[in-house]
Amino acid sequence: MSESPAKVAIDAMGGDYAPQEIVKGAVQAAEKDGVELMLVGREDAIQRELKKYDVSGLPIRVVNAGEVIREGESPVAALRQKVDASVLVAMRLVKEGAADAVVSMGHTGAVMVSAIGILGKLEGISQPTAGTALVGLAPNTVVFDLGPNADCKPRDLLSFAVIGAAVARKVLHIGNPTVALLSNGAEEGKGNLLVKKACPLFKQSNFNFIGNVEGNDILSGKVNVIVCDGFTGNILLKFCEGLGESIIERLRVSLDKRLPREELDAIVSDVFALTHIADVIGGGMIYGVNGVVWIGHGRAKAAQVAESIRQIKLVVEANLLEEIRSGLGML
Amino acid sequence: MSESPAKVAIDAMGGDYAPQEIVKGAVQAAEKDGVELMLVGREDAIQRELKKYDVSGLPIRVVNAGEVIREGESPVAALRQKVDASVLVAMRLVKEGAADAVVSMGHTGAVMVSAIGILGKLEGISQPTAGTALVGLAPNTVVFDLGPNADCKPRDLLSFAVIGAAVARKVLHIGNPTVALLSNGAEEGKGNLLVKKACPLFKQSNFNFIGNVEGNDILSGKVNVIVCDGFTGNILLKFCEGLGESIIERLRVSLDKRLPREELDAIVSDVFALTHIADVIGGGMIYGVNGVVWIGHGRAKAAQVAESIRQIKLVVEANLLEEIRSGLGML
Repeated sequence: MSESPAKVAIDAMGGDYAPQEIVKGAVQAAEKDGVELMLVGREDAIQRELKKYDVSGLPIRVVNAGEVIREGESPVAALRQKVDASVLVAMRLVKEGAADAVVSMGHTGAVMVSAIGILGKLEGISQPTAGTALVGLAPNTVVFDLGPNADCKPRDLLSFAVIGAAVARKVLHIGNPTVALLSNGAEEGKGNLLVKKACPLFKQSNFNFIGNVEGNDILSGKVNVIVCDGFTGNILLKFCEGLGESIIERLRVSLDKRLPREELDAIVSDVFALTHIADVIGGGMIYGVNGVVWIGHGRAKAAQVAESIRQIKLVVEANLLEEIRSGLGML
Repeated sequence: MSESPAKVAIDAMGGDYAPQEIVKGAVQAAEKDGVELMLVGREDAIQRELKKYDVSGLPIRVVNAGEVIREGESPVAALRQKVDASVLVAMRLVKEGAADAVVSMGHTGAVMVSAIGILGKLEGISQPTAGTALVGLAPNTVVFDLGPNADCKPRDLLSFAVIGAAVARKVLHIGNPTVALLSNGAEEGKGNLLVKKACPLFKQSNFNFIGNVEGNDILSGKVNVIVCDGFTGNILLKFCEGLGESIIERLRVSLDKRLPREELDAIVSDVFALTHIADVIGGGMIYGVNGVVWIGHGRAKAAQVAESIRQIKLVVEANLLEEIRSGLGML
């Protein structure tokens, strides 16, 4: 974006362990990553947390916001009543150009609604999307959509591909990322109606489109951007986590007493990390809004908060938003 | 079905290793499982294989069929030209009541087309379906549809539930199997349009319907019958296999030199088996046709052929077809 450090607004009040773990993670990130941080929330509560650390000289400032949206609240109603909610104040900092990005571990619906409401959707996007590498075993294969869009039109799949390709280029540094449609068969003509309708649009597009791929190709490394509807994507994501956990249970039994405890733990942690990418990175971006927004897991602790800030800093520095905007403009 | 042994017609010419491995597997099954077998295909070729074993007293007979459908042939055209194809002759044995079931490791499309053409679809079925426990880690959770039906109507999902519940009762011996819709969220109201439309139909049905479940519940053991469209099911199946293989690769590296070779192999084989259920059992049934039909993998060898025959014998003895027919009648 520019040579000056990325400026990230953090919703210090959002998340199960807010503000303690949020502030702690922010301090870690500020120490390591050369970002400018704005901690948004109740000033007294945030200052109380900051006092626990040596923050002298760190680029952290506090932006007061009097209210918080809690889990379980209806996001639309809550945001209407609580105009001074920390997540809204953080979004406004981006809207006004004071910050480059928002990180929130708060109420997912509230972050989504406030991002759309305040920042707006990018031209060409019907609904914001989420995506990432689905498994750590294939880090150069991102899958979009992983949840928000249960029902898609062929055109939505094209917009996911724009976003996925931009992520592959700008974040993963893949020059000419390959793009494929996730399907129930690799042959042309295979697919559900959505895939069949989308296929000709992809063939006419400027993507490096390689056709259909199957479920195992999420791991094969054969393609950089896999596009699917969010119903399928969400089920895959949860299944991946579930399968990882089940295999871990099995390994704990089969490796018990065959390996020293710490070696077994290391192997188990590795399988967990490979199958729980969202846990490892602590959340994910919302793509398709007119700003850089990270929704973290509510249960995120300091390490994940710091990692989220590091991720979002890379995204800001890579100018990903501009890449997406220009890709959508060419559709 | 009756007190007499199950009578199974085997397409001895279908599969990559036909007739050698098919005949070998059939002999193994006849020795162990108390089934009556009809080996259908070129009599001279089958007899040549049978001579390799001591089959005196075994309930095996050969039914001549002069032609074979090969991989790569268009099934509809091939079946029209080759009226004496082994798969057709086998289906006719069921149609005429001479056999209770067909097992074929041949051309999948040809088995499907000939089953529909000769045996017909059951009343209430728009397309035949396939399903099984998706992972060995949750053997009491069957998933339908796993492939044939990429696009489904709500009513199709009901018919899959009938079939899945019948399998749970008759094959898995679960008294009152629970049924759920696979969705992108457990809460009522979550889902794509198909799930949202299907949900009220399931609530009105006689199923022990517990609502929506998520991708991880395929492994959690929370529900016995999970219903989804075949697009999602096929992608999950392939992803499961791919993830299993990737974790195996990883374990081979991380456990190398930490365990004796044979212990490592045993652990790897276990993970493979848990994530490749179709490989382990060598194929699966087609449900929804008016007969018991097993489509095995083309690459099946004798052990899988024998296992397929054992599975199909259980299905015949459990009177599964009648259970499905009566369930469909109550929809």
